[in-house]
Amino acid sequence: MRRTEPRLLSPHDHPVDPWRLVERRFSSRLLPRTETLFATANGFVGLRGNPEEGRPGHDHGTFVNGFHETWPIHHAEEAYGLARTGQTMVDVPDPKIIKLYVDDEPLYLPHAMLPSYERVLDFRRGVLERSLVWETPSGKRVQVRSQRLTSLRHRHLVAMSYEVTVLGSDAPVVISSQLHNRQDAEPHDTRQEQFDPRTTRVFDDRVLHAQGTREDGERILLGYRTGRSGMTLGCGMDHLVTTDNTYQVHRELGQDLAKVTYTVQARADEPFRIEKFASYHTSSTVPSHELVDRADRVLSRAVAVGFDQLAADQAEDCAAFWERADVEVEGDERTQQAVRWNLFQLLQATERAEGTSIPAKGLTGHGYEGHYFWDVDVYVMPFLAYSAPRVAKNVLRWRRSLLDMARQRAQELDHVGALYPWRTINGEEASAYYMAGTAQYPLNADIAYTLRRYVDVTGDEDILSESGAEILAETARLWLDLGFYGDDGQFHLHAVTGPDEYTAMVDDNTFTNVMARRNLQYAAEVLERLAERDPHRWEVLCHDLDLRAEEIDQWRAAAEAMHVPYDEVRGIHPQDAHFLERKRWDFDRTPDEKYPLLLHYHPLVIYRHQVLKQADVILALCLLSEEFDEDVKRRDFAYYEPLTTGDSSLSPPAQAMVAAEIGEHETALRHFEQALYMDLADVAGNADHGVHVACTGGVWMSLVYGFAGMRDNGVLRFDPRLPQGWEALRFRLRKRDRPLRIEVTHDALTVELLDDGEPFDVEVRGKLVSASPDAPASVPLS
Amino acid sequence: MRRTEPRLLSPHDHPVDPWRLVERRFSSRLLPRTETLFATANGFVGLRGNPEEGRPGHDHGTFVNGFHETWPIHHAEEAYGLARTGQTMVDVPDPKIIKLYVDDEPLYLPHAMLPSYERVLDFRRGVLERSLVWETPSGKRVQVRSQRLTSLRHRHLVAMSYEVTVLGSDAPVVISSQLHNRQDAEPHDTRQEQFDPRTTRVFDDRVLHAQGTREDGERILLGYRTGRSGMTLGCGMDHLVTTDNTYQVHRELGQDLAKVTYTVQARADEPFRIEKFASYHTSSTVPSHELVDRADRVLSRAVAVGFDQLAADQAEDCAAFWERADVEVEGDERTQQAVRWNLFQLLQATERAEGTSIPAKGLTGHGYEGHYFWDVDVYVMPFLAYSAPRVAKNVLRWRRSLLDMARQRAQELDHVGALYPWRTINGEEASAYYMAGTAQYPLNADIAYTLRRYVDVTGDEDILSESGAEILAETARLWLDLGFYGDDGQFHLHAVTGPDEYTAMVDDNTFTNVMARRNLQYAAEVLERLAERDPHRWEVLCHDLDLRAEEIDQWRAAAEAMHVPYDEVRGIHPQDAHFLERKRWDFDRTPDEKYPLLLHYHPLVIYRHQVLKQADVILALCLLSEEFDEDVKRRDFAYYEPLTTGDSSLSPPAQAMVAAEIGEHETALRHFEQALYMDLADVAGNADHGVHVACTGGVWMSLVYGFAGMRDNGVLRFDPRLPQGWEALRFRLRKRDRPLRIEVTHDALTVELLDDGEPFDVEVRGKLVSASPDAPASVPLS
Repeated sequence: MRRTEPRLLSPHDHPVDPWRLVERRFSSRLLPRTETLFATANGFVGLRGNPEEGRPGHDHGTFVNGFHETWPIHHAEEAYGLARTGQTMVDVPDPKIIKLYVDDEPLYLPHAMLPSYERVLDFRRGVLERSLVWETPSGKRVQVRSQRLTSLRHRHLVAMSYEVTVLGSDAPVVISSQLHNRQDAEPHDTRQEQFDPRTTRVFDDRVLHAQGTREDGERILLGYRTGRSGMTLGCGMDHLVTTDNTYQVHRELGQDLAKVTYTVQARADEPFRIEKFASYHTSSTVPSHELVDRADRVLSRAVAVGFDQLAADQAEDCAAFWERADVEVEGDERTQQAVRWNLFQLLQATERAEGTSIPAKGLTGHGYEGHYFWDVDVYVMPFLAYSAPRVAKNVLRWRRSLLDMARQRAQELDHVGALYPWRTINGEEASAYYMAGTAQYPLNADIAYTLRRYVDVTGDEDILSESGAEILAETARLWLDLGFYGDDGQFHLHAVTGPDEYTAMVDDNTFTNVMARRNLQYAAEVLERLAERDPHRWEVLCHDLDLRAEEIDQWRAAAEAMHVPYDEVRGIHPQDAHFLERKRWDFDRTPDEKYPLLLHYHPLVIYRHQVLKQADVILALCLLSEEFDEDVKRRDFAYYEPLTTGDSSLSPPAQAMVAAEIGEHETALRHFEQALYMDLADVAGNADHGVHVACTGGVWMSLVYGFAGMRDNGVLRFDPRLPQGWEALRFRLRKRDRPLRIEVTHDALTVELLDDGEPFDVEVRGKLVSASPDAPASVPLS
Repeated sequence: MRRTEPRLLSPHDHPVDPWRLVERRFSSRLLPRTETLFATANGFVGLRGNPEEGRPGHDHGTFVNGFHETWPIHHAEEAYGLARTGQTMVDVPDPKIIKLYVDDEPLYLPHAMLPSYERVLDFRRGVLERSLVWETPSGKRVQVRSQRLTSLRHRHLVAMSYEVTVLGSDAPVVISSQLHNRQDAEPHDTRQEQFDPRTTRVFDDRVLHAQGTREDGERILLGYRTGRSGMTLGCGMDHLVTTDNTYQVHRELGQDLAKVTYTVQARADEPFRIEKFASYHTSSTVPSHELVDRADRVLSRAVAVGFDQLAADQAEDCAAFWERADVEVEGDERTQQAVRWNLFQLLQATERAEGTSIPAKGLTGHGYEGHYFWDVDVYVMPFLAYSAPRVAKNVLRWRRSLLDMARQRAQELDHVGALYPWRTINGEEASAYYMAGTAQYPLNADIAYTLRRYVDVTGDEDILSESGAEILAETARLWLDLGFYGDDGQFHLHAVTGPDEYTAMVDDNTFTNVMARRNLQYAAEVLERLAERDPHRWEVLCHDLDLRAEEIDQWRAAAEAMHVPYDEVRGIHPQDAHFLERKRWDFDRTPDEKYPLLLHYHPLVIYRHQVLKQADVILALCLLSEEFDEDVKRRDFAYYEPLTTGDSSLSPPAQAMVAAEIGEHETALRHFEQALYMDLADVAGNADHGVHVACTGGVWMSLVYGFAGMRDNGVLRFDPRLPQGWEALRFRLRKRDRPLRIEVTHDALTVELLDDGEPFDVEVRGKLVSASPDAPASVPLS
């Protein structure tokens, strides 16, 4: 076990503020991290937090969810059935650039004299704003205020405002607003200096091929098509100027760079303000000129509305988000700030993700190539189910849309049923290392699990006959085919890789087996219910899937016979059938700089030992809490805790939740803080790759499942463990369409019903209580 | 289990002949295979059996052992410690080409009218000869006789003769003798049509960079340097003409093609004969111009001697080979022919391999990229130890020369000691798929094993203090470091891949554990003896290796505590700790065209099942025969036989040996024939990649260990099982420098001593007998 202390940002430069992330001093050194922390996104389009001036920058990422290039995966040694098509989220043209020259000198933050500087990501307004005064080399003082938002209401729209005032004197001012295809214009060499399997790809060939442009006034529109994946893109920018200064406009357009330049004769104290709008449309089927039309229309609407109104709309939408999803931590302001930053990232990563899933880094960085993984299902979906069921449903529907490809992949692996890709954008398996990719079968059960949770939380049973039943049937079939009955009469699943990637290709991974059991059970349950309640849909399904009723019995039988490893001597669940036989990792011999282990040890060395990248059995204890009694949880936790490196950001939330449950308060808080500050304090050392979105979901889970001790199987139950230093924990959620506010203090747990409906029952430490519209339920916690 | 019948060559076109492989009809269709079968080589240089005319050809390979190009291995997904440097044996310029034009029409075998045609690989003479009569389109009859040899006496020399006679009429004849750098001149596309991890690599860049040429008369010399590995090559050709016809000579030289062309005014029945000589020198350190000088000198010597004398020398050297290594099978002529072909391949692959090892395909094809594997140690070294100890010693010394790199590799894998590369040319690990490469730890024990066998057979103890002790100490250290004492007090080796590649990364692979135990024991034994007998050398060693006497105790202790998996219920050795828990492969559901499985199933599917590519436990039973009693051998064999696909050519010999030992006569013969005809009948379907050299060694082992039932631990012991259809099996070998001839009939086993020394004791079925120079020992076999 390694104990990394979070490298917190300096409280002087980054003061505590419950609703804002603040930066009081520009730092080039922190740029790789702050570009991530100050990113803006709406789930569809995302911009890293680069300064408007376009330089300096670690990574100028501008992303559209799902917009990717493909490439053939060349395996150093070929084998049958390896993944063939690499997929990489690529940069769309960068709209953030607004360059400023005063007296022909550029504003360049690292060298500029900045008597005042403040940058703020405002969680309540959903705006990134910056305000600075620049003392130019010629002695002039220039005030620059800018704002940037990625519209939650208008999915395809980015809006900015940029206001320059020369204080106390006149000066010639030039402002150059740009839209820059950096994907093909710049080598991304800073991100490729050393091998790291988690970073992104440099393309040798051009990715975005220009497909015609359009210009009109201060508006420029660009069409592109990717070289291999054949995706199309229409994008553009437009501007609105407000000023009493006189100025000239100049427009310039190259293949990779569009510029609108304002030459201003700025008078003393007379502001010059530009509103800049950018729009993005992408597609796999529509020609780019149509997408350009769409972007054109978006820009027209934006110009008509203006930045201030868009900012007001944005604030309204943010308010609605906090109304349904806020978590308050009373008594610890720094934690409060960090919690809100994490929740805000969840909003930014998911809100307008429609027809796609959520990339591992949201839209804030190139990390993991913009791929979708299972961690959305396990770590992000709980938050969405309780706070944004519409988005949760979109993600489930996206899984359904992949089903045909998953069936095909199952066939390639000699299976029946469906085998979902471990990492993908377009639905094809993109993991070039099958041992920690294709072998991660449990993701199929994670999908079934999250489907069930969504239905349990929302009560939306329609999704089952619409999409869910098919997913459940095909994943259940996969398990039945993958497994087999051993000589012991039990059902075994061999050669799979569980959540922990420091073991691979193991037999009877406990997590996999209990999750697969749940998958089989739920599939049987849902399909039987469907047959009973909607015989027509059942018949259609049987026909479509060539499904026989006996299959359901086989699923139930396999679930019943499922082998779950258990070590009688130690009274714990081995991570897999043979985990306990392995040599224990020598942590004393492992210096700090050798973490993460994956960057410093050959896989064989790691796989050979008892050492965990991330929670595995412990994650099973979280997800299927009700299947394990507290004593075994305590023993499992005691066994795995010292073996877990936390080399994955997915680990601390799970460890925090179980630690909280078994009363390991300090440990729980320590893991919670590792998750909470994963990016803010760059715990994993790779915050520059983008926000660890699943970990932000894990923060929510740690608060709600961990410290508030919430469980939900039909009835909401609470068994809170409020950290000592906190006075209260308050959060909102919707359960079966009923809005609730829960407050946990050291003295009591209170459930407030926020609508006028029927009374609502919850259970607190075994006691059933009822909240009614005018009377919250409050249970004293002795 | 699959039962593939060997696809034997037609006896009509390929008649049975005890000393020759004969081809009576040219067949384009069989060319990929016959190029391999008729290859000529001397262990240093090798030529595939292409027709002189240069076309048609499947693969025109011309090889020098160890001459390779390197390339950076790009892993689709990076990880720490993966192999970095790919190595590929590349073609040296092709000297085989002698093109013939009569009346300006080329001789092109597929279209030519050939009233007579015969090609013969003569095992006794070591010459490939061809004799044909060509009826040209213009009605002329032309007799062509050619011979080709790769000199056993002159390591760097290839010699040919080519004689053309126009029968009964005059004709203009043109003969163009070429030396052709095909490596850079031709795309090798025919070999890359479909994915097959066993085939070779196409280079994008030029491999051989010309470094100056020299010309003189009919001699042309070429110098080259490889682009990346930096190896140098000097080669050249020269000619001698004998004729009464008048002719002109023309010389032509390009970067990749040297030509000497003879324009002959051929008179009726007047032969025109060219002798052609080619020489190759390669190096990693010497500049190419020096190598060109060396080739020049070789050619001068060859021209002075002439082809006929070289052919006489060759016949003498072959006779000496058969004198020491022949195996006679009486009563089955086809088998006799095939046995001699296999033995001849062993001669061709090994005789002048000096300072290198033996590539998996010898010098007969591009298969496995010319890499050296562990199969030399296990399958070829027994033959060499008994028949060519000088060559065996070279191979052991080559292993010693790799020791520093193996130490470095061990460090990369976080080990102490030495970790030998699983596949390599230059000593670096070249396996791009670590699961079936680096993970094959047992090769380290194979090296120790073969060292011991060499010493036991030859009595050459000097090799131990010269090279062996270091190898033994460093490999023993590796095992001690890799393994660990489990809770059961036993010593375990985890996450290794045994010989069978249809399982990977397993715990306590039986083969590995018993071989590692032997390695540890032998290291302890040899080093202790060294300390006692040669204290000075021991001190030097302790200093060089930083060796402490306690280490020896630790090796012994680990050997003693070594865990050997054993299943009490079935009474068999599981292939690894968890092999028996796996699902059994469904052979009934596997059609013939799905073999070899590795080309049709994802590795995960294969690894998940009880299915073997090749003998694993069974190989352990062969190599450490004395450690297992016959009953367990019988049970092990019965268990694994039906699970073994034989997708590797290394499998049948081991299966044959154990089957013979336990009295499964038919099965033994069937496996023996699979090995015997592996290339002759293209059993594996890839004879075009080159000769399966290890399998030819396995043929010898099957005969000597299997059917003659020979065992050797100090004393030679015999327990023969002569196949029913054979009348006698006779073979020669040297044991501790004593030449012996053994004859097995159904009635008796006779040991003849071929020198004049002391009487020699052997044991036959438990009975000790003594052969003396004038009195063979003969033991009746009731």
